[in-house]
Amino acid sequence: LNAQAQNADPLPSWADGAAKQAIVGFVSKVTRENSPGFVPVSERIATFDNDGTLWAEQPMYFQLLFALDRLKALAPQHPEWSSQEPFASLLKGDVKGALAGGDHAILEIVMASHAGMTTDEFAAIVKEWIATAKHPLSHLPYTDMVYQPMLEVLAYLRANGFKTFIVSGGGVEFMRPWTQAVYGIPPEQVVGSSIKTEFQMRDGKPVLVRLPQVNFIDDKTGKPVGINQYIGRRPIIAFGNSDGDLQMLQWTTAAAGLRLGVLVHHTDARREWAYDRKSSVGQLDKALDEASVQGWTVVDMKQDWKVIYPHEKR
Amino acid sequence: LNAQAQNADPLPSWADGAAKQAIVGFVSKVTRENSPGFVPVSERIATFDNDGTLWAEQPMYFQLLFALDRLKALAPQHPEWSSQEPFASLLKGDVKGALAGGDHAILEIVMASHAGMTTDEFAAIVKEWIATAKHPLSHLPYTDMVYQPMLEVLAYLRANGFKTFIVSGGGVEFMRPWTQAVYGIPPEQVVGSSIKTEFQMRDGKPVLVRLPQVNFIDDKTGKPVGINQYIGRRPIIAFGNSDGDLQMLQWTTAAAGLRLGVLVHHTDARREWAYDRKSSVGQLDKALDEASVQGWTVVDMKQDWKVIYPHEKR
Ligand SMILES: [Ca+2]
Ligand SMILES: [Ca+2]
Repeated sequence: LNAQAQNADPLPSWADGAAKQAIVGFVSKVTRENSPGFVPVSERIATFDNDGTLWAEQPMYFQLLFALDRLKALAPQHPEWSSQEPFASLLKGDVKGALAGGDHAILEIVMASHAGMTTDEFAAIVKEWIATAKHPLSHLPYTDMVYQPMLEVLAYLRANGFKTFIVSGGGVEFMRPWTQAVYGIPPEQVVGSSIKTEFQMRDGKPVLVRLPQVNFIDDKTGKPVGINQYIGRRPIIAFGNSDGDLQMLQWTTAAAGLRLGVLVHHTDARREWAYDRKSSVGQLDKALDEASVQGWTVVDMKQDWKVIYPHEKR
Repeated sequence: LNAQAQNADPLPSWADGAAKQAIVGFVSKVTRENSPGFVPVSERIATFDNDGTLWAEQPMYFQLLFALDRLKALAPQHPEWSSQEPFASLLKGDVKGALAGGDHAILEIVMASHAGMTTDEFAAIVKEWIATAKHPLSHLPYTDMVYQPMLEVLAYLRANGFKTFIVSGGGVEFMRPWTQAVYGIPPEQVVGSSIKTEFQMRDGKPVLVRLPQVNFIDDKTGKPVGINQYIGRRPIIAFGNSDGDLQMLQWTTAAAGLRLGVLVHHTDARREWAYDRKSSVGQLDKALDEASVQGWTVVDMKQDWKVIYPHEKR
């Protein structure tokens, strides 16, 4: 059974090609004892962007869809929103109009939907949403829109002694309630953006209250900063899909020793979405240029992935 | 051999008494399958304060002694320090005089000694210091002044499926270079205070530069905030030794299910130091009162610990 397990293809949803070869070849090299590229288990750190790398991100980031659902639920308690932007547009279903307010509008949406409750209350809200909400186009639960080939990479790396981390621009407390069940990644291995929390005693019980203040933005140059702050050592593998991952891949691959940088390129308009240099969500432009210079692996979703979502496999 | 290992006392440096019983009793209850107190491995999170809990902290925090050594090394490049407080007093050996400047003086000392270099450079400085520096009174390397009974607790918990974390007011990048070797705790399981870092490209290579700005203070109410931010779930065991740990113990023990809160009380003036309510370092006052109210375990170092430091055992 053991020999059989070892001989089985660890990445069955990946087509034979350069991307699969790069991943399997890298793992073979760093795990072969007494080889020059050998890396001890303790240093086998792999980091993964989430939106567009582990799950889909179109027509907009799923966390933004969560925020919109949340605002709709809260609207009855906020009659003033009917005449106040960005809420007025949102509640009329005009997301584009609401987002026309730029970063300030997004900040207002995030704080109104993500702050003002305890951390325990927020976790319960996220769990309820992730268990029941459906994607506006596919009508699938959001956790069915994770990428089967990436689930295989996560499991394959862990089977080879890697610790797998998420390093995402998304909210850390939006991800932690479900990453263990969906990706096999425990809360303490999730790095993300955050708002501030405050310790309070309520009726003699300690709580952490979520404040409407940005604490940390885990994107672009924030990704290596977050990796250093939360993980405290440098990954030897990093997977991303956009310019938000450029610095994470630079930080990962510039150090001495064998390193693997991978970009997931969304090239499949039929089975998923096709977008890159000009997309407002998950823009991939500078990082794509840098991939050629640095020799990073670029996954062509259309060519390299036999299936996209887990349900296609069943 | 296995039966022998299981029967061997996992805490040989602990005297039989209430503290040892509380620890062993708790671990037995949460690890016994099908018992009402059973906790799955994934939720066996234990957090430990560092200064005064895992290693000594007198006559002052060891990280402050590191900062002073560092300032002495840097002084030739800073002639202006000879007439500028707190540096002038420090360089004359008058630590008390320097610290008379209060929090502002400490901040100046920390930033002058801890900022201005890359994270890699700082890690190398810490490694060099921890390998060579000696404590001013014991003349032992600082890592010989860790508590043998606590090393046994860490190993015992890990053998029972716990993940052990440090949650310390000390600097996270001051601890991470040596916690794996000394405590068996990897960098990604160390939570601490931090200064900000900035991503920069230098000669085409990415670096993280340490800035003279506070990022996070992991003390008092900051401890539950840090636990939530870095670990993302609540511990079921917390060990501390001072009022800086009060909120961590409240946060840990107030939740449902079996919980263990432990305070290390420094009661042994002969073998270590005796101090509590009125100490300027590691003050233990409010948390000691709260321990009686909450039923937290208080370790009496003089009575409960057969040896203090590892070398006493040899
Ligand atoms: Ca992304
Ligand atoms: Ca302490």
